[in-house]
Amino acid sequence: MSKSPPEISVLTIAGSDSSGGAGIQADLKAIAAHGCYGTSAITALTSQNTIGVQGVHPTPPEFVAKQIHSILDDIETRAIKTGMLFDADTVRAVVDALKEHYAWSTIPPLVCDPVCVSTSGHSLLDLQAIQVLIDDLFPLATLITPNRPEAELLLSHRQLPGKIVNIEDMIGAAQNLLEFGSQAVLLKGGHVIASIQDIHQIIRTRNDVEIIPHNLLAENMEILQVDEVEDVAAECVVDVLCETGNIALLVRPRIDSMSTHGTGCTLSAAIASQLALGAELKEAVTKAVAYTHLGIQTAQVIGHGHGPLNHFHSLMHYSIPRQTRTNRHPFTRLLIQGNAREWKQYVEHDFVKLLGKGTLPQKAFVHFIVQDYHYLKYYARAYGLLAAKSTTFEAIGSATQTIINIIHEIGTHKSFCNSFGITNDVLEGTPEAPATTAYGAYVLDVGLQGDSTKLLMALLACLLGYGEVGLWLKKQSSLPNSWVILENNPYRQWMDDYAGENYQLAVKTGLELIEGRAIADPPSPLRFKEWKQVWDRCTILEIGFWDAAMAAA
Amino acid sequence: MSKSPPEISVLTIAGSDSSGGAGIQADLKAIAAHGCYGTSAITALTSQNTIGVQGVHPTPPEFVAKQIHSILDDIETRAIKTGMLFDADTVRAVVDALKEHYAWSTIPPLVCDPVCVSTSGHSLLDLQAIQVLIDDLFPLATLITPNRPEAELLLSHRQLPGKIVNIEDMIGAAQNLLEFGSQAVLLKGGHVIASIQDIHQIIRTRNDVEIIPHNLLAENMEILQVDEVEDVAAECVVDVLCETGNIALLVRPRIDSMSTHGTGCTLSAAIASQLALGAELKEAVTKAVAYTHLGIQTAQVIGHGHGPLNHFHSLMHYSIPRQTRTNRHPFTRLLIQGNAREWKQYVEHDFVKLLGKGTLPQKAFVHFIVQDYHYLKYYARAYGLLAAKSTTFEAIGSATQTIINIIHEIGTHKSFCNSFGITNDVLEGTPEAPATTAYGAYVLDVGLQGDSTKLLMALLACLLGYGEVGLWLKKQSSLPNSWVILENNPYRQWMDDYAGENYQLAVKTGLELIEGRAIADPPSPLRFKEWKQVWDRCTILEIGFWDAAMAAA
Repeated sequence: MSKSPPEISVLTIAGSDSSGGAGIQADLKAIAAHGCYGTSAITALTSQNTIGVQGVHPTPPEFVAKQIHSILDDIETRAIKTGMLFDADTVRAVVDALKEHYAWSTIPPLVCDPVCVSTSGHSLLDLQAIQVLIDDLFPLATLITPNRPEAELLLSHRQLPGKIVNIEDMIGAAQNLLEFGSQAVLLKGGHVIASIQDIHQIIRTRNDVEIIPHNLLAENMEILQVDEVEDVAAECVVDVLCETGNIALLVRPRIDSMSTHGTGCTLSAAIASQLALGAELKEAVTKAVAYTHLGIQTAQVIGHGHGPLNHFHSLMHYSIPRQTRTNRHPFTRLLIQGNAREWKQYVEHDFVKLLGKGTLPQKAFVHFIVQDYHYLKYYARAYGLLAAKSTTFEAIGSATQTIINIIHEIGTHKSFCNSFGITNDVLEGTPEAPATTAYGAYVLDVGLQGDSTKLLMALLACLLGYGEVGLWLKKQSSLPNSWVILENNPYRQWMDDYAGENYQLAVKTGLELIEGRAIADPPSPLRFKEWKQVWDRCTILEIGFWDAAMAAA
Repeated sequence: MSKSPPEISVLTIAGSDSSGGAGIQADLKAIAAHGCYGTSAITALTSQNTIGVQGVHPTPPEFVAKQIHSILDDIETRAIKTGMLFDADTVRAVVDALKEHYAWSTIPPLVCDPVCVSTSGHSLLDLQAIQVLIDDLFPLATLITPNRPEAELLLSHRQLPGKIVNIEDMIGAAQNLLEFGSQAVLLKGGHVIASIQDIHQIIRTRNDVEIIPHNLLAENMEILQVDEVEDVAAECVVDVLCETGNIALLVRPRIDSMSTHGTGCTLSAAIASQLALGAELKEAVTKAVAYTHLGIQTAQVIGHGHGPLNHFHSLMHYSIPRQTRTNRHPFTRLLIQGNAREWKQYVEHDFVKLLGKGTLPQKAFVHFIVQDYHYLKYYARAYGLLAAKSTTFEAIGSATQTIINIIHEIGTHKSFCNSFGITNDVLEGTPEAPATTAYGAYVLDVGLQGDSTKLLMALLACLLGYGEVGLWLKKQSSLPNSWVILENNPYRQWMDDYAGENYQLAVKTGLELIEGRAIADPPSPLRFKEWKQVWDRCTILEIGFWDAAMAAA
């Protein structure tokens, strides 16, 4: 069974947004989208939707602290983010809880989104709370992530020049904010208008600034312009990331969207998740910005106002359930269950039943065994094709060994035929039945058309099917008053062979092979459908093969 | 751009679990895992972890109602679930809010998880609250999902026989609970011990009961036993789903696990999500049970007590970001960016630069054009192979048209060569350079080995590369004081051809083709790596091709 990496936990301390697009709800979605495990301490309930906030119900600060303790006492936490902290007492409670739990140096990466100005420009935190935020929380923070109005408000608290209208202002403001005590500052530029020309101006005039582009065309990508909308990139959004001795501008095209509810929450939760996963700060911010940007771009309309982002754009559904202790063959089960009627027709075919009773007309069996001889030539060639399509000596060797096994099996076929009075010359000279050509040529065609996994689907449908027939007959024969006759059954050897240890070992290997492929290279829904089509087709062709034998009798 | 289906919203009305494994946090995770959008009205905050509950802070009932109104007023909701409702006033507030918002018949599917007994056996709701739950909420519900202790408690409220120790008891209890007014009852059997023999007994004695197995071996699956642990299936969990005139037992192997925190929340949220997606009740319950079961089985250890499920077992990460307005070629960008150094070496090769300056030795160009003639034979054959690997007449026709175009291009090559005094006989007779064979045979080998998409990677690396070279030269020539010489440049025609409309149209078609493949059949990380390897290899082989031409001068 495939082991997942250990779960990485991220804690968010923020408000609750009933509409699910911001606050801890957005944070938990973003954390989950990064493959991390999210926990949450709620600082206030809000009753809100995409149009506005209809009510706020603060949590008592001591209960905020209690939630933090419950989480940190039990769950190893790799990163923390804070969002809306409501008031000064709450900020203090958060700071105290963190300090009680961690020695200064052991606090995990802390991303502080200083939510203090609403999108509509209203102050969400009173002056006292902002002061506590600056004095007590920022010094613990790895990163603070103010937007323009928040940066201006924070700077005004220290009588620092604060008006931010262009990129140069942003760089200056970010440098000033770094003095507040966090290890780094990400000043978000959603409210600042910038053009590609402004960026070029910065590149020309400042050599202390690194440019990190996202979704802008780099050099030697002229071909992509063929279809790109030129004007989209004309206006940009620029975020300034400022660490000691290091300034980076994250630049991306500005996009028009109503789906921006919870953007700040999402970004800071994404940064915290990246830090929890072990990314360096700049990498974490770069990836989180790209994640959030794509969340806005791929959002669907929710509600009547500013809707939420799409937090799960990076995830798709598995086509096959995970392998577990009670389901070690989820892929093969899906194949069999998805085709149960035909699979049963095949396994419990009249040919098989009469064979089990020992009353199968000899003519039918001879037809079958002669045609199977011809079919096995296709089958051996298909394994040759599989060897040609393989990339490792192990896979090449395994396919080749199967060919050797088939050539050995041919010997048994010849003996069978001889015992029924059919010479090797007659065997070789009997023309192929259409059902034989259909099945054999189909397997080769699958091999020509697709990759080695698709070819394996065709090869294993045959291998596994005969294994099932062998075990089904064996199971029937073990039931009380069974209709299966073993003694003096002329086909006993055939039954024993397919239910026997050797053949079943090959079945087991085949099962492991395709289950392993499905785990190593999980198919898209389209690809799974193609695999399933091959399996289903082979089942039908197997039925046709036995129908032809019965018709010959 | 691919359009996703419209977002399907599901509302949960429940408590908050700080540790993220139960309550609205589990619900939102489960809802998200089903591809739905989750909203939440919080009835109480809890301070808890995997070991226990350290504190509860109830929400005022009127604020619970306020949250519900904020959500329902704005966001179209396709299903609702209720979890822990704390007290009688809260239950009433929820019922009133739903009734205010919906006329009786228009209420969306409502799944009521009657959380009233904790795992440790403590009653979480007082008697009065349970009475309101029964009288006012159940009649609105599509489904109620009690576990055994909850069922016993509920039945005792109506003085009904309630002791549940076996499957027969469960069926009787579920039938009695159906009288409480919900449209259906799912009585969860996690607390009831049952064996496969008990199930067989039910099958023998009752013909009014449908059995829905999950992760148990069905008929004609004998081969899977090869590797399945027999004893795992010996003890089962059975849930009873009871609708009017319909009883179904959902049976699955019992699993030992500490990761069961929030199982009930998760199941009811999963059922609500399935109903929101349009599933019929029985299908919704069956799928939700399977989802939850797999969540327990694939859980990782979180915390020190009963940890949470893995809510996201059904999701995997995309290897390629989504296509957006500002990034119409995410796949090609990844390929170029992932290989930027070699790509630049190729596009800005000395051969290309000298060609642009018009100072490329004629001998180098002739070597190139003669070898390209030979290469194009491989290339045309590879498109023949692509036609053979195609499944639609459109794809077969498109590959064939490219062969016709190549044969036409060959005419230009011949004219070029003739103008340099090289006859057709000399052209045909010149031996292939190793670099030519390497590249040509590699493309054919990729085509033999993989599927049509992998072959396309090799074919398009060549197509797109020459398109980029053409555009790069054109861009350079348009710069002020360009080093590119157009007038009297003997290679002018070559440059114009590859920057020209016809060729760039082919580039555009090629881009759309591979981007479309990546969307229709999103590759697993392994498959993406294979595609990238082909792209990278082709870039290297292109560099080698020009190196050989330069070396010949």
